[in-house]
Amino acid sequence: MAEAAAPRTHRTRSWWGWGWADAHPDDAECLEMGALVPGTLARPLPVPKIADLRIGPPAVTPPAALAPLVTADPAVRASHAMGKAFRDVARALRGRPGRIPDLVAHPRSDRDVADLLEWAGEHGVAVVPYGGGSSVVGGVEYRGEAHRAVLSLDLTAMDAVLEIDTAGRSALVQAGILGPALEDRLRPHGLTLRHFPQSFEFSTLGGWLATRAGGHYATGRTRIDDFAQSLRVVTPAGTGTSWRLPSSGAGPSPDRFFLGSEGALGVITRAWMRLQERPGHKASAAVAFTGLQDALQAVRAIAQSDLLPANCRLLDAGEAALSGASHDGSAVLVLGFESATAPVGDRLGVALDLARTHGGTTAKTGADAPPDAAVGAWRSAFLRMPYLRDGLARMGAVVETFETAATWDAIPALIDDIRTEVGAAARRATGHPALVNCRLTHVYPDGAAPYFTVIAGGRPGDEEAVWDELKSVAEDVLHRHRATITHHHAVGRDHRRSYDRQRPEPFALALRAAKSALDPHGVLNPGVLLDV
Amino acid sequence: MAEAAAPRTHRTRSWWGWGWADAHPDDAECLEMGALVPGTLARPLPVPKIADLRIGPPAVTPPAALAPLVTADPAVRASHAMGKAFRDVARALRGRPGRIPDLVAHPRSDRDVADLLEWAGEHGVAVVPYGGGSSVVGGVEYRGEAHRAVLSLDLTAMDAVLEIDTAGRSALVQAGILGPALEDRLRPHGLTLRHFPQSFEFSTLGGWLATRAGGHYATGRTRIDDFAQSLRVVTPAGTGTSWRLPSSGAGPSPDRFFLGSEGALGVITRAWMRLQERPGHKASAAVAFTGLQDALQAVRAIAQSDLLPANCRLLDAGEAALSGASHDGSAVLVLGFESATAPVGDRLGVALDLARTHGGTTAKTGADAPPDAAVGAWRSAFLRMPYLRDGLARMGAVVETFETAATWDAIPALIDDIRTEVGAAARRATGHPALVNCRLTHVYPDGAAPYFTVIAGGRPGDEEAVWDELKSVAEDVLHRHRATITHHHAVGRDHRRSYDRQRPEPFALALRAAKSALDPHGVLNPGVLLDV
Repeated sequence: MAEAAAPRTHRTRSWWGWGWADAHPDDAECLEMGALVPGTLARPLPVPKIADLRIGPPAVTPPAALAPLVTADPAVRASHAMGKAFRDVARALRGRPGRIPDLVAHPRSDRDVADLLEWAGEHGVAVVPYGGGSSVVGGVEYRGEAHRAVLSLDLTAMDAVLEIDTAGRSALVQAGILGPALEDRLRPHGLTLRHFPQSFEFSTLGGWLATRAGGHYATGRTRIDDFAQSLRVVTPAGTGTSWRLPSSGAGPSPDRFFLGSEGALGVITRAWMRLQERPGHKASAAVAFTGLQDALQAVRAIAQSDLLPANCRLLDAGEAALSGASHDGSAVLVLGFESATAPVGDRLGVALDLARTHGGTTAKTGADAPPDAAVGAWRSAFLRMPYLRDGLARMGAVVETFETAATWDAIPALIDDIRTEVGAAARRATGHPALVNCRLTHVYPDGAAPYFTVIAGGRPGDEEAVWDELKSVAEDVLHRHRATITHHHAVGRDHRRSYDRQRPEPFALALRAAKSALDPHGVLNPGVLLDV
Repeated sequence: MAEAAAPRTHRTRSWWGWGWADAHPDDAECLEMGALVPGTLARPLPVPKIADLRIGPPAVTPPAALAPLVTADPAVRASHAMGKAFRDVARALRGRPGRIPDLVAHPRSDRDVADLLEWAGEHGVAVVPYGGGSSVVGGVEYRGEAHRAVLSLDLTAMDAVLEIDTAGRSALVQAGILGPALEDRLRPHGLTLRHFPQSFEFSTLGGWLATRAGGHYATGRTRIDDFAQSLRVVTPAGTGTSWRLPSSGAGPSPDRFFLGSEGALGVITRAWMRLQERPGHKASAAVAFTGLQDALQAVRAIAQSDLLPANCRLLDAGEAALSGASHDGSAVLVLGFESATAPVGDRLGVALDLARTHGGTTAKTGADAPPDAAVGAWRSAFLRMPYLRDGLARMGAVVETFETAATWDAIPALIDDIRTEVGAAARRATGHPALVNCRLTHVYPDGAAPYFTVIAGGRPGDEEAVWDELKSVAEDVLHRHRATITHHHAVGRDHRRSYDRQRPEPFALALRAAKSALDPHGVLNPGVLLDV
């Protein structure tokens, strides 16, 4: 172990909602927000208590050798029962969480993981790998009754940075490390992973790798995949480590097969990750567009250039208003450039020229309106958003996001259709108009990743069902436009219907065969990616 | 079909050696080259003739429905018997080619491919997918006797560009198209795939995809993989097409599983490929270094910047001399920048500054020594090299290349050890000193891809065996340094020993299981990646 663990924070995580328990909006703030959404409750739902849940004794007992790794503490079990999607929050608020795991294990080594998998396989115990627990697609809960018991395999005790290769800009890191702890360890070396998903504080390296998380970059290497140099994977059929290589053409990439396997093929326990020098040169600006179509043309031009902005987020008028980036009905493009090599002002300049060519106008500068006011507003809103979601959920609102990616030809109609059809479905389901906003989070020369936010008044007591109805409509629109069911939220259990429609059948055959070979007892995250 | 096929060239391909038959060195040139390599023959071996081979009748007859797609013509069969590695050329020169396929099929549609696979499966006929036939790793020949007959599946009749999406910069292309034909079809649209491997003229899109070919870029997106937007794969268990997406996080990437599958899991018949605007801005320069260590430091600094040179090839002193890029014992770094967006002079300038910081000197400019003289010399030599190899082979020399990739920490000792140990092995094997040169073809922030050229006097009549001895020594050095058995030449049959040592066991289990599911009769390119 190259470095000691950093001191743990003493803040408490919310068991039922996003992030820190003390960062949630209070009742007054909930009421204020609720007043903005027609059809919400008159009073916030109470913050749910674990003590109110009926949690039975575990159906299995681990053998003595594994007992020190395992707990049956009800509070720990309850906090591992679900991820952090809106439907998870709504279920917790209504006192009907998913099946609560019988046991939670905190392995400290690959050997521990292998031993736990062996025991689980022998006893028909489902194993649900768990990192930061921030899944929004039902990735960390067990559904159904096919297994006699459920073990949540919490990797967060395996959180060390084991080795740093400064010259080669890489680090060997255990999978259970959370985002801030990893960056804290790398900072003294002048290095960074630069992977900053919205869940950064509450998600782990292993979770990012297992779900192919989308990260900091809006262009180029947008995904954690490209930064994985080597993986160690523990499977019921054995453990393997890919070589640490900058690139290899030896057969299909072993790492790319486990990236995105969502705990169904094995448990990623450590990885050599490619790092970067901390960027010292930065420049950002916001560009306003009166119409979204012009903005899309501008973004496409920038994405097809070789300028490679670190940030290139297009907010539609609703999203820009919601985040405070604009209040006049404009769409706003937030552009950011970063480099450790050379100043980036020129690149920003060329990008702004491209944006202006397509009708964009840059913000006025001056003491009262610094050019990046919209940028700052958007950033703050971005990090606060999941907490606000939970506050609105307490008001009985339906508040959720979903994301996709599609080729440029499909993007305009896709955005229109989602707005129209999900909006109509919300009105049908709740009797109230809904907010359906869109932003582009990642852009590519050949397409983009739209990210939608839906805020609707609820049908009190029935919030999950309402969301399921809206999401089903949304999924059909995505399918019609051949837009992926997920750009970076993963498949989990919630996206299985659409994933199964999207996945080419020969690959499904290969995946099923691989699953049988690697997990012969079918205990690894059952129901994710494949049927139980 | 969106575009008619271009008129075919009337030049004749060499059946035994590289490229065009009329581009091979004549006897006088062979003698001249041979004089430079100690231990070669006094006279060139004669150009081998198909008429001198004993080619029996095929062991199987296709059914009437497939007969129009299939030929048993001995000349066609002989020209499909092997790839274009040195050992293939040597075997042809010595009149002992590998097992000659019984039949060669030229399917015209996915249906044809599926029908051929079905028939082959039912009759135990091995199917070896064949594009341009430029494999240098035994990827397109059959070895052994486990199958009653061998069908070479030549995809080159499926060579249409079916659709071009100009706004989305993508094209749907059949797998059998050769490099020049593809670029010819794209040029009128101002687009290019910009994939220019050394084999460009004689290799196909399908071959590039199936072997994860390395392409034009020395940095960033170095490999065809990143340009594949969607693949269609025909397998004995069914056909599937991945969705056309700019990016997707829905499970492990289906495309990445078939990329690099080398014809063992299915036949890639078409792909949507990401294209680029043709770069109008270019700048290149050569930098000389007195020592390779300094040069490596410079290259690492450039690779770790965000300058992303299109070309960043480091030639060691021997390689620089061989290609005419320098004659004073210097190592030479060939740098090139290209952009369709903006002038690249500044990026070249920053890169040259980095190179100078590490002891590099740029060439003098002036009428007699234009700054890119070394660049031009190297480019011409690069394209002519495979023909010269065949000329030397006719002189009984052993001439071959191999390539790898490793992290930066391993690179200096790896290059030294290959030079020393392969050099010593050559002297042991042939009694003569050998030339062992190195260049870096692709560079990454975390490592590089060294490419070695070996020229040794032969052991007349025994050239393949000599090469196998040298390669075995080389492979052990690669393994010791945990350098991949191949950066972009693929595994084929020649690299199986090292590939099996390198591949993580859980992935081997998954691959074997997938192979059984997709190719239940075990007829697809048997022996490649996995045992028959």
